[in-house]
Amino acid sequence: MNRAVIDHRGPEFQALGLALLENVKWVFGTRHPVFIYPSSATGAWEAALSNTLSPGDTVLAFQQGFFAERWARSAARLGLDVRLEPWDAAVGLDPDRVKEILVADTRREIRAVLVVHNETSTGVTTDLEAVGAAVRGSGHPALLMADTVSSLAATDVQHDAWGVDVTVSGSQKGLMLPPGLSFTAVSPRAMEARETSRLPCAYWDWGDMLESNRDGFFPYTPATTLLYGLAESLEMLREEGLPNVFARHARFAEATRWAVRGWGLEMVARSAGSFSNAVTAVRMPEGHDADAFRAVVLDRFDMSLGTGLGDLKGRVFRIGHLGDINELTLVGTLAGVEMGLALADVPHQGGGAAAAMDHLKETSSAGGGR
Amino acid sequence: MNRAVIDHRGPEFQALGLALLENVKWVFGTRHPVFIYPSSATGAWEAALSNTLSPGDTVLAFQQGFFAERWARSAARLGLDVRLEPWDAAVGLDPDRVKEILVADTRREIRAVLVVHNETSTGVTTDLEAVGAAVRGSGHPALLMADTVSSLAATDVQHDAWGVDVTVSGSQKGLMLPPGLSFTAVSPRAMEARETSRLPCAYWDWGDMLESNRDGFFPYTPATTLLYGLAESLEMLREEGLPNVFARHARFAEATRWAVRGWGLEMVARSAGSFSNAVTAVRMPEGHDADAFRAVVLDRFDMSLGTGLGDLKGRVFRIGHLGDINELTLVGTLAGVEMGLALADVPHQGGGAAAAMDHLKETSSAGGGR
Repeated sequence: MNRAVIDHRGPEFQALGLALLENVKWVFGTRHPVFIYPSSATGAWEAALSNTLSPGDTVLAFQQGFFAERWARSAARLGLDVRLEPWDAAVGLDPDRVKEILVADTRREIRAVLVVHNETSTGVTTDLEAVGAAVRGSGHPALLMADTVSSLAATDVQHDAWGVDVTVSGSQKGLMLPPGLSFTAVSPRAMEARETSRLPCAYWDWGDMLESNRDGFFPYTPATTLLYGLAESLEMLREEGLPNVFARHARFAEATRWAVRGWGLEMVARSAGSFSNAVTAVRMPEGHDADAFRAVVLDRFDMSLGTGLGDLKGRVFRIGHLGDINELTLVGTLAGVEMGLALADVPHQGGGAAAAMDHLKETSSAGGGR
Repeated sequence: MNRAVIDHRGPEFQALGLALLENVKWVFGTRHPVFIYPSSATGAWEAALSNTLSPGDTVLAFQQGFFAERWARSAARLGLDVRLEPWDAAVGLDPDRVKEILVADTRREIRAVLVVHNETSTGVTTDLEAVGAAVRGSGHPALLMADTVSSLAATDVQHDAWGVDVTVSGSQKGLMLPPGLSFTAVSPRAMEARETSRLPCAYWDWGDMLESNRDGFFPYTPATTLLYGLAESLEMLREEGLPNVFARHARFAEATRWAVRGWGLEMVARSAGSFSNAVTAVRMPEGHDADAFRAVVLDRFDMSLGTGLGDLKGRVFRIGHLGDINELTLVGTLAGVEMGLALADVPHQGGGAAAAMDHLKETSSAGGGR
């Protein structure tokens, strides 16, 4: 990314734009357009809604955690009628429950279902493929919108095959880039919904994007240096191979859980099927403040653990294990947690990092270090 | 900017955020909040409108050029009633005309006046201070909103003293950064208008920004690496001193005009008071395509001149002369134009670059090269 900015209306940019807009589709598992915004993923949430819906439309969301509820709040602010269903955030969304609600909606009031694939605040993953099948299987015409901010390029995402209508993501997680780019992958049904949508839409408008993107350009000044980075990150993912990328994330997540269990601590995610491959949220023992512990780790070892968000503030810390990491940076991370737990006098058992090493050693392969 | 991304919820970021949010005010000439978005300036246009206005509100805009009309189009798409006044884009907006319209609006229907300070598509500058005085002098309560994308940090901008309510800008011009950040400086009156605004507003919401910014944070993931760059660009501007920055831009703009006159070509900007310090748009001689000429310059000398936008497509090319440039890069730029004119067989006189050198030499000062 450390190159001079080129004319975003010139031929060199055009070649970059055309290549990127085509190549990025592969990560989303789609043959349809993926729109790239200079914005955070919060903006892409808004793009998904404001291109497809009209004031007063009902959207269905679930209490999956901080980010799911933020998305729902954005929807409410845009003038949508949000039906926020209770959900136990410690487990992934139940496809049957989604189907049940849609089947019960005989008046077809629900226009979109908002699902967070991997809830970054809890480290809980939902089986998006199964949710997609449930939505389609319900016979209900609602659009399925998925937030894949912390799942994309860490866990498989198949926009087309799973029947997702709008897949939202950001640059700063599995794509290994600085923050500043967001994405919406858009199904033909979602593009069609745009035709009748009446929410005001200017900056986020897919119509403008589609028209400019056709020639590799953007309707307004793009974040050029981040696009340079995206070209490189796509190349890195291609070199490693997405199945290898996913396997690496799954293995590192499992090693992290070995460490957490080794410390005798509890995870927020309760069931095996809900464990995130990208982030593990760990509950603090009763009477201990997660942020005080995080401050010790930051002070002693210059490592910033994720804070608890919303209701979980002070009650959990989060270990990120996605993107450009390997076995040794992971063990370093876990060592930082373990030493911090001791230094902050948090009750725990030693040996978590060693347990993770056991797992990593057993599952290592010749040539795996590349 | 080439540093690792830090935790945007941690103390190191907080220190950066607090310093930036305070220091950036100086460039805008304001004591009031400046909100920084991960977006292009097109997004900041939307922020200005959607925080302050309600569906059906009338906004006044002028045919100042491509960007002024784009802003007006954004307003229309957001559900505002745009009154787009005819204007001769070759000269800066007449404050008396603005005042006249506001005074005639006895029913106070106009809620906001949109003015582009420096129209990037034409190289025509408007006296924003005089427009501010006209708006205030009219006794009309309309908000004054100014696009300073290509004027900020190239020409003086005084948000408070000139009575501007929302000053919009971007990172990629006078602030010398890659694209990807935008800004809105917001007056107390504009913040007050937010209380009664009914346009949907989520991503752009100033309320969220104000609350998070108080502690140096942002309501969603910020574009961290660009913020690193902003800290440096503010420091560069402070080292040079804003009056010196403005004088340098004025001098380089004048040298550029000496070159254009030397070539015997015409500028889009017609009157001396309208000449831009940031960009000069040059008319192609009849029967010659500006983009064909631009292609020759790009091919031969790897220099991308600005294209003609909108109605001016093919009819003008634009020479940018703002940001991190000095006498010699400017002469290099002008030499590229001059050699390109010859190579593309565009009728012109030689000696433009030499004329610019004359001006630069005469106005150079001991120690000026720093």
